[in-house]
Amino acid sequence: MVDPKTVLQNLEELRALTADEQGAQRLAWSPIWLKARAWFEERLKSLPVEHHYDAAGNRWITLPGKSDKALVIGSHLDSVPNGGWLDGCLGVLAGLEVLTSLANEYNGKAPCTVRLVDWADEEGARFGRSLFGSSAFAGTHTVNADRVRTDRDGTTLEVALRNCGIDVERIGGASREQKNIAAYLELHIEQGPILERRGLPLGVVEGTKGVERHVLTFTGQEAHAGATPMNVRRDALAAAAKLALQIRAIAKKHPDAVSTAGSLKTFPGIATAIVGRCEMTLDQRDLDPHVLTTMLREAREASERFAAEEGCTVDWSRLWGIEPVAFDPHLLELCEQSVKEIAGASHRLPAGALHDAAEVARAGIPSVMMFVQSVRGISHNKIEDTREEHLELAVAAFDRLASKTIDWILAIPSKP
Amino acid sequence: MVDPKTVLQNLEELRALTADEQGAQRLAWSPIWLKARAWFEERLKSLPVEHHYDAAGNRWITLPGKSDKALVIGSHLDSVPNGGWLDGCLGVLAGLEVLTSLANEYNGKAPCTVRLVDWADEEGARFGRSLFGSSAFAGTHTVNADRVRTDRDGTTLEVALRNCGIDVERIGGASREQKNIAAYLELHIEQGPILERRGLPLGVVEGTKGVERHVLTFTGQEAHAGATPMNVRRDALAAAAKLALQIRAIAKKHPDAVSTAGSLKTFPGIATAIVGRCEMTLDQRDLDPHVLTTMLREAREASERFAAEEGCTVDWSRLWGIEPVAFDPHLLELCEQSVKEIAGASHRLPAGALHDAAEVARAGIPSVMMFVQSVRGISHNKIEDTREEHLELAVAAFDRLASKTIDWILAIPSKP
Repeated sequence: MVDPKTVLQNLEELRALTADEQGAQRLAWSPIWLKARAWFEERLKSLPVEHHYDAAGNRWITLPGKSDKALVIGSHLDSVPNGGWLDGCLGVLAGLEVLTSLANEYNGKAPCTVRLVDWADEEGARFGRSLFGSSAFAGTHTVNADRVRTDRDGTTLEVALRNCGIDVERIGGASREQKNIAAYLELHIEQGPILERRGLPLGVVEGTKGVERHVLTFTGQEAHAGATPMNVRRDALAAAAKLALQIRAIAKKHPDAVSTAGSLKTFPGIATAIVGRCEMTLDQRDLDPHVLTTMLREAREASERFAAEEGCTVDWSRLWGIEPVAFDPHLLELCEQSVKEIAGASHRLPAGALHDAAEVARAGIPSVMMFVQSVRGISHNKIEDTREEHLELAVAAFDRLASKTIDWILAIPSKP
Repeated sequence: MVDPKTVLQNLEELRALTADEQGAQRLAWSPIWLKARAWFEERLKSLPVEHHYDAAGNRWITLPGKSDKALVIGSHLDSVPNGGWLDGCLGVLAGLEVLTSLANEYNGKAPCTVRLVDWADEEGARFGRSLFGSSAFAGTHTVNADRVRTDRDGTTLEVALRNCGIDVERIGGASREQKNIAAYLELHIEQGPILERRGLPLGVVEGTKGVERHVLTFTGQEAHAGATPMNVRRDALAAAAKLALQIRAIAKKHPDAVSTAGSLKTFPGIATAIVGRCEMTLDQRDLDPHVLTTMLREAREASERFAAEEGCTVDWSRLWGIEPVAFDPHLLELCEQSVKEIAGASHRLPAGALHDAAEVARAGIPSVMMFVQSVRGISHNKIEDTREEHLELAVAAFDRLASKTIDWILAIPSKP
């Protein structure tokens, strides 16, 4: 039997060790992150497990089983700077409690192999590369793009990794860990307001939304704000403002789609000059790849229309993207059963944020995630929170999901 | 007779001395500005004039006259960084040529006193205080506000002025120069596209537009761009974008009004977060004070409506303002006659940019400005330009305006 209180105690202990007044500071590849990992290693000492780091810095903890087929439970200990006390580490510490409970229940040898993984650098907060460790595991990583990454101080990713004992050229070796994995489970806070608004503590994640992330540059003509009549202006901000509003209408045609202009910069950016150049980011997400394609096309058309209306031009540059990932239908069922058994009611929702589970699913491994409600939907912030009773329900439901998944793994015929 | 070619030669000489590849660098209180003023002083040596600096650093050059009543011609030698070759210095060097021509014509004693003034720091580019010298002259200056001004390097205005021999506490003494001034004339490039679009080399400036300059802060809720559904967002950028578009509609109700959002800043300003705070500048201008008041009220109401629509709040902070200034009706007539006689056709237009003439007029001195066409309406930029033949017409028309104004001054009955 899992003990949810242990998970809460561990979360509090980790917070005391790795947060300051501004929130959690477990930035990947930093001393505080290494301290969190060292603290976590202490928690493994009394367990009958093998553990090691793979070539990308993911830590794998393995409880042996009668079957080689493995259930993997995972999440990440790293945080954004000034982050919350639950994002990532809830999943690792709940996973640790499930593993401990199974080790006790089965006296050190579970029905199938059960593994816990602490993914390296899920957040990508320092080098701008989210899902670092899990994408190396999945083989979707591109080392060429990573060689040139630097942080704000000019430190290269390569040097930061080397200081943690990782060779950036060899991180692809993490894919060897895929062997025998039959299913992947991840518990995470929702980071959005959907469960709270529905009054539900827990939810089943259908999949992770695909992302199209671009930066658009509108170019008009800088001119004197006092001396230039309204009807001859080529105002780059006007074109961008129209698009910042239109992308919302484009997203609202679809029930779960989101579209965000998170950054807008004006040049020269002074009160007395018409904006000659305006840079705007666009981040569009949906679980349906066709919806995502449609939204992107509509935004592009709108941007060109608004640029023309304002005597401007527009250029697009793609920053990043990932396709939508749908989770395994059978694991969705098991997750829904587990949530209903513990919390009475469930709801299926897509994950709008990025999660390592998406990379695991891309590697062809049946995967699912469970969400627990976030207070006010706030995350990546020191005020991030989840009610204690909801955390306890989450640990209990996730434990139940692990047991159901072990049964399912054992029932699957082995591949010939 | 004025020789427009001399003015062109002087403009070229000054450009060679004080511009680099990026344009004019005669930033007020800088070594290059002092170099420009020293070069200008050399031009005075052969003239039968007295010259001195007043308490605010304005240079006054006086050609004595049979009457103490004085015609003043003025403009400024200082420029913005990376500025053009005509903004300000055209008026000073055309004025010098008019003064020289009058000195020659009347053998050192004109019918009335004629003075040329090179205003100090018209642009306010370094300390953010436009019309520095002319407002000290007009008595509209506030020393308290200036004591705390610093440039980008942290140098205070007080120190910069002291290095040029000016005591910031005493600049109000410049108002003593108002004595006996009967009229003020200023020639300037238009810095906008109106004359070019009408195919006219010269125009008559009706007055200078009043300015309302504010910074608005919309506050919503920063949240995850992926995990926050569209219908629960409190997007500060959306509210600001609506206003950035609406201020244009508000201005377009009035023929000459302008309204500009020149700077927009987003916080936290990253692709993956909904904008929680958005700062926007608003600069509104019109010649009619009622129009200006109406535009400001409408913008304020719109900002509150859009904030409410987006679940945001809005705060306003006034950055700066100046009331509209209408130029003297009789001088407008003389200016129009002069322009028509030299260029065939004229057009009356308001000045949207700030000019020292506005401060002189605020001191109760009958004033007027003449504009010469700007190529493409571009100014405050190294590509600022005016066709040579238009510059020559401008000098000739301005000389004619000076003669007409002298006649007018002499015809005014002296105050009892």
